[in-house]
Amino acid sequence: MSAPTLEDRLDLHSLRRRIDSALEHYLSVKALAAQADHLPSVPVEVIRNFVFVGGKRIRPLMCVLGWHAARGQDETGPVIRAAASLELFHVFALIHDDVMDHSDTRRGHPTVHRTLAALRASDTFGQSAAILLGDMALAYSQEMLNTAGLSAGQLTAALPVVDAMRIEVINGQYMDLDSSKELTDDLQRALVVIRYKTAKYTVEHPLRLGVALAGTTPAVQAALSAYALPLGDAFQLRDDLLGVFGDPKTTGKPALDDLREGKRTALLALALRHADPDQRATLRRLVGDRDLKEEQAKTIRTILIETGARARTEELIDTQYRAALRALDRAPLPPCVLDVLHELAHTLTERTR
Amino acid sequence: MSAPTLEDRLDLHSLRRRIDSALEHYLSVKALAAQADHLPSVPVEVIRNFVFVGGKRIRPLMCVLGWHAARGQDETGPVIRAAASLELFHVFALIHDDVMDHSDTRRGHPTVHRTLAALRASDTFGQSAAILLGDMALAYSQEMLNTAGLSAGQLTAALPVVDAMRIEVINGQYMDLDSSKELTDDLQRALVVIRYKTAKYTVEHPLRLGVALAGTTPAVQAALSAYALPLGDAFQLRDDLLGVFGDPKTTGKPALDDLREGKRTALLALALRHADPDQRATLRRLVGDRDLKEEQAKTIRTILIETGARARTEELIDTQYRAALRALDRAPLPPCVLDVLHELAHTLTERTR
Repeated sequence: MSAPTLEDRLDLHSLRRRIDSALEHYLSVKALAAQADHLPSVPVEVIRNFVFVGGKRIRPLMCVLGWHAARGQDETGPVIRAAASLELFHVFALIHDDVMDHSDTRRGHPTVHRTLAALRASDTFGQSAAILLGDMALAYSQEMLNTAGLSAGQLTAALPVVDAMRIEVINGQYMDLDSSKELTDDLQRALVVIRYKTAKYTVEHPLRLGVALAGTTPAVQAALSAYALPLGDAFQLRDDLLGVFGDPKTTGKPALDDLREGKRTALLALALRHADPDQRATLRRLVGDRDLKEEQAKTIRTILIETGARARTEELIDTQYRAALRALDRAPLPPCVLDVLHELAHTLTERTR
Repeated sequence: MSAPTLEDRLDLHSLRRRIDSALEHYLSVKALAAQADHLPSVPVEVIRNFVFVGGKRIRPLMCVLGWHAARGQDETGPVIRAAASLELFHVFALIHDDVMDHSDTRRGHPTVHRTLAALRASDTFGQSAAILLGDMALAYSQEMLNTAGLSAGQLTAALPVVDAMRIEVINGQYMDLDSSKELTDDLQRALVVIRYKTAKYTVEHPLRLGVALAGTTPAVQAALSAYALPLGDAFQLRDDLLGVFGDPKTTGKPALDDLREGKRTALLALALRHADPDQRATLRRLVGDRDLKEEQAKTIRTILIETGARARTEELIDTQYRAALRALDRAPLPPCVLDVLHELAHTLTERTR
């Protein structure tokens, strides 16, 4: 049997399978260790269930692609495990995010704090336990990276990337939370938050991690960043649209959460900017109402359409998507890597979930 | 000017100063970076204030002592910085702990979530922002360790210790949270929780980290663990006593928090075990009552005294304190290190705050 070539491997389905089996292996070992040490089984089991009910593995995939881009050869087991550790970091971010947003469902299932609340019929327990399980997922993600089997040189190169990723995404989350109570038309601020909260976190840093593991090549890194940042923007803008206009059956998230929470999105900033005084007053009254009904959500959606905010957001997505693809035109990357990066750009911006 | 000798340095005040100046330096650089990058200043400022309003720096001190024990020579800057990173981890743990316990004060000042709630006159904001600031402190602690200037060998030795410490303390916290709703006389369980939540976290792992940085010597490690675990138990048992009988002016924590929260301590397990049916019923009724008044707390304190639970806890502290000291009798450590470990054992078990 001949060794598979890079071309054979650069099939996203097979990469996802390898990432998932690394996660499954790491979490099984943790579950066994908990049993052996008489530690509680709930944290690792709930984290494992959450990992495997869904998730697109975007960040691990980007990391492996960063490796391929810089090295142009098959990824190794340690690279797959290091990449997969990003999914556990993402699990941490989602668990805490859902606690902060009081969300009931995620990936079409109850959120972790809801699951834990049900275990003990106590919302207080659910919330506290979910804070701890988020913390645990973060600790797991660091341990999975540290024990991935990387060389000392690879680990030394990886740690600053992961450190920067963490601190930046938490800053982005904080900026998001700290957005003014009042809805504003401050599009610029919304776009800065997107940069930190999503673009760098979801696309740029994972690609950078892969490049760092391969041995940094500045030209490759620059090309990938030029692709990553606009693509990450477009991904979040699509997410914002889906949060308001998406079908809960395919998004896995309730249709009213973003509006009830009053998320300060670029979409809303655009609506505020182009709304007439009546529309502006209606948006200010309804967005962020914790008891918002579907009827009122319809009113908001109509305003988002009538002010052109929805169409303008689609345009922004398109502009950023094209910018990402243009960056690939000039990129010194193997053709099969370019193909997959094109495919992912399409998936992330046109996705329905 | 001649270089200071180990004897000169092994003054806890001067060690604490070096640890604090490492923390101050790291956090100042983060504050400047936030300013330069137009990132929010609140997370780093609130974390910095919290670090410097108090704290005994037990974990960093233990780490430096672990180094001295194994190496028998002056600690270096990288060792101080690695040790200090444990304090940022502790800040993470305290911030999340206070959110979960709904505590209003810590170290004699408003807790982080109360401080943040006041900034925006919103409890919801305070809670969410504190979850993020805890996450940030954890990310900082890892970055501070990674950038401490350790050699590749030291870092490789340090990471597994820190990984184990994190995962064990979060497991301990989860076990604590998951204790049965009903008060029980299960002393054994209370002691297991103490092991994970405090003894390993506060004493054993920090000492182990110092030994790992020095180049592991199994005999030293074994001696230090034999000292660390009973001392850590005694430290937590003292904390439990102070949580009920301590003076808020010196503990910095409100006198009723532990009782209102219904913390399942060894002290309460001992009381349940030796209570008559009336006392047992009274404890079950009052402990965990969120609206507990000082008058009712007095009733509980009386029962804790009358059942002998307080005296038995003092005995347990004494037993564990003596076990810790006995471990030092046989320990192959430099005399000046032994002196300081004796001093710390005394401070941690007799402390009033």
